[in-house]
Amino acid sequence: MTSDALRHFEEIVGSENVVRPDSERAQDYLKDMADFPSEPLVIVQPTSTEQVSKIVEYARNTKTPTVPRGAGTSLTGASSSHGGIVIDFSKKMNRVLKIDAVNWYVQCEAGITLDDLNEQLRKKGFFFPPDPSSSSWCTVGGAIAENSGGMKCFRYGTVKDWVLALKVVLSDGTIVKLGEPLPKNRVGYDLVHLICGSEGTLAIITEAWLKIIPLPEHNTERKRMLVFFDEWVHAGKSIQGIRINRIQPTLLEFIDRESMQSVNDGFDLKIPVHEATLFIETDSQIENILKICEENGSTGNYIAKDDADEERLYNARALVYLGVKALATGFHTEDVVVPLDRLTDYLEFVKSTSKKYGLRIPTGGHAGDGNVHPVILYEKSSKESEETAEKAFSDICNYAIQVGGSVSGEHGIGEQKISYAAKQIYQHNGKQALELMKQIKMQWDPDNILNPLKFLDITESY
Amino acid sequence: MTSDALRHFEEIVGSENVVRPDSERAQDYLKDMADFPSEPLVIVQPTSTEQVSKIVEYARNTKTPTVPRGAGTSLTGASSSHGGIVIDFSKKMNRVLKIDAVNWYVQCEAGITLDDLNEQLRKKGFFFPPDPSSSSWCTVGGAIAENSGGMKCFRYGTVKDWVLALKVVLSDGTIVKLGEPLPKNRVGYDLVHLICGSEGTLAIITEAWLKIIPLPEHNTERKRMLVFFDEWVHAGKSIQGIRINRIQPTLLEFIDRESMQSVNDGFDLKIPVHEATLFIETDSQIENILKICEENGSTGNYIAKDDADEERLYNARALVYLGVKALATGFHTEDVVVPLDRLTDYLEFVKSTSKKYGLRIPTGGHAGDGNVHPVILYEKSSKESEETAEKAFSDICNYAIQVGGSVSGEHGIGEQKISYAAKQIYQHNGKQALELMKQIKMQWDPDNILNPLKFLDITESY
Repeated sequence: MTSDALRHFEEIVGSENVVRPDSERAQDYLKDMADFPSEPLVIVQPTSTEQVSKIVEYARNTKTPTVPRGAGTSLTGASSSHGGIVIDFSKKMNRVLKIDAVNWYVQCEAGITLDDLNEQLRKKGFFFPPDPSSSSWCTVGGAIAENSGGMKCFRYGTVKDWVLALKVVLSDGTIVKLGEPLPKNRVGYDLVHLICGSEGTLAIITEAWLKIIPLPEHNTERKRMLVFFDEWVHAGKSIQGIRINRIQPTLLEFIDRESMQSVNDGFDLKIPVHEATLFIETDSQIENILKICEENGSTGNYIAKDDADEERLYNARALVYLGVKALATGFHTEDVVVPLDRLTDYLEFVKSTSKKYGLRIPTGGHAGDGNVHPVILYEKSSKESEETAEKAFSDICNYAIQVGGSVSGEHGIGEQKISYAAKQIYQHNGKQALELMKQIKMQWDPDNILNPLKFLDITESY
Repeated sequence: MTSDALRHFEEIVGSENVVRPDSERAQDYLKDMADFPSEPLVIVQPTSTEQVSKIVEYARNTKTPTVPRGAGTSLTGASSSHGGIVIDFSKKMNRVLKIDAVNWYVQCEAGITLDDLNEQLRKKGFFFPPDPSSSSWCTVGGAIAENSGGMKCFRYGTVKDWVLALKVVLSDGTIVKLGEPLPKNRVGYDLVHLICGSEGTLAIITEAWLKIIPLPEHNTERKRMLVFFDEWVHAGKSIQGIRINRIQPTLLEFIDRESMQSVNDGFDLKIPVHEATLFIETDSQIENILKICEENGSTGNYIAKDDADEERLYNARALVYLGVKALATGFHTEDVVVPLDRLTDYLEFVKSTSKKYGLRIPTGGHAGDGNVHPVILYEKSSKESEETAEKAFSDICNYAIQVGGSVSGEHGIGEQKISYAAKQIYQHNGKQALELMKQIKMQWDPDNILNPLKFLDITESY
């Protein structure tokens, strides 16, 4: 980037809010949480939507790519930049603007973390339910752009279900508001949900109006527990049994032996380790749930003793990704979703893929949603190991497509899954559906300056 | 329409499924539930998505407008046709295709009524929550195209929150599936929600995959009750009090004296009649709710005695529209939403508008969502009365826009509110937001054959 250009950015956001790529501060921007590399031209930390507008105007005029960035907790390279302007919202656009206790929404800037948001909401008796494992770092803007999930989404839905309205900057720098901060609104096409999960490829989110609800009262009926199994498929069959019996637990998570062991090793949580564990929270029908698990081969269970113990179980599951990540130098994180009637087949397929390629694939995730994450481990130093891991990754994506599932439930597409996403749309939805999406991208961002090389920026033909 | 054209349709759908405009059967298609008139060229009753595709292909080739139609329960003229092909889904495309008891979805054709759908779901222990008052007639396709609401939407959300995937016919006749019947899917832009609430202007819905949930167990804590007031604003303040105290009833409806009287008169339900009544259902905090109402001026209450009595109260509210409709020859049904902190101001505004113009405006609706429906009555025989009613209608729409509300919460735009919808978008969202919407319409339907003259088909400039 020319020094003229850098000076231009310094004029827009102030010199202290421009991070030059060769500076010490730029180190924080060179990879995401899954180690996807990034080489930004420049990092800017705007303080207002108007500044973002000016930055995008420059980008449009000079055809320079832009990448909006929260905390960089993407697991798919969605916040990586290869020679573009990184717009970091986490530093100077991280305020709550309004907590509306009558209309039950919060208006906030894109860069606030979910935990900081919930900290402020808690003081007023409210909360924002979606809880990605990265909630202490990840930002509202990133969570909307990625339509993030989490454990509580089994009960409450994913981020998209909580977004009422957005302030965004379009690719020509125009600022618009999409949607209305109202419980219902039937005016115009739903552009809010077009933006949710669009990974910064259509517009840049600067502010959001999010639904909030009262903190739940202490529910003495609520129990958190672990149920243990000697076989993955027994855990899978138990989940299917719970569904067929129309029981609605509030959390329903799967954790395999290796994942649980890694959490114990990394965080000293002293959780019993079994071949497979279901982590369940429920308000009702605890006996029925345990009975269904027994009928499907459970070997025992553990019910949390008190609030602190409940917290320990929740943390164990939330820390799986960090625990597993420490097991090898390289890893591919899968995020496929399968229809729940195919869940046991899928778990068997992951097991057999692990055997077939001689790879360790610790596996855990949101089993109640059919969204269990295998993490394919390999050694970065070995080209062969890496290539084998890629084959396993590909097999699992293709398996999900084949059984009517999705290649991503909550992590998104980013750089990681472009070709698989295109394949899924092509096979499940039809070529014309992919065309409609590409036309929308073309309409909203004719110069492809908004997070290019991601999502549906497909070079191959299908 | 030429006899060649009619023969072409008879070849596509079979002669028994073509209704000629001059036939006896065509009488059913000449108005909607709110008496918006319709003059179709022809009515076709296809039996498959492939037939719909062929019909649309013909329409595209001949630039003939098409209007998809369920039961014609639109309150805004959305299903009216002025010289086009009406595609009626209610007669031959009204089947449930699959109830999936593991994945918790139902796949059905667009023409099934919500009550028929729920009847079939009930047998398997499930239900589909959204409950427009017209649920015994209105169809799934119409409810999605209109993103309908209902009383239960206060707790469960509107139709859009329950749509997983759609089969649609595009304006060139192509058949595509949008979305996936999965709890989570992060692949591609969210085109499903672009279609929800688009009123048949982007694509024609032929099948839907809808989320379903288990029928609730009998909840002994649940109570339905009426709370009475001498002043509308006291009811409004009570609602605000309930919200500020972070209490979540499951139903929260407002009914004024004239509406309640009309229901008693029309359906002999013998409900006590007061100046204003709140109809409340709650699982908890009944004493707190009653206390808040008392503090805000309630004059009494009535708690349902048994299941049949609970049903009676629910029906009283559900029948308000039909009761009120019988009071005059002409009526404009309002559907504005106001922010809940403006609810009492809004109720006062409706009262004063009624006085200002000397019009009867019975008022009832989803107060918990800020979506209360004034019905402006007039006499069709008097031009003056009609014009005065139009002024009141306009005043209320403009008031909603002015206080940050919406001109429609659940009835949609249709022919009725095009200019108000455009005004709202222009003022609240920005001119560019309206442009983006119009560009999407242009992209999806370049010849404007999909339900033209509705929604955002704006002729005036803003």
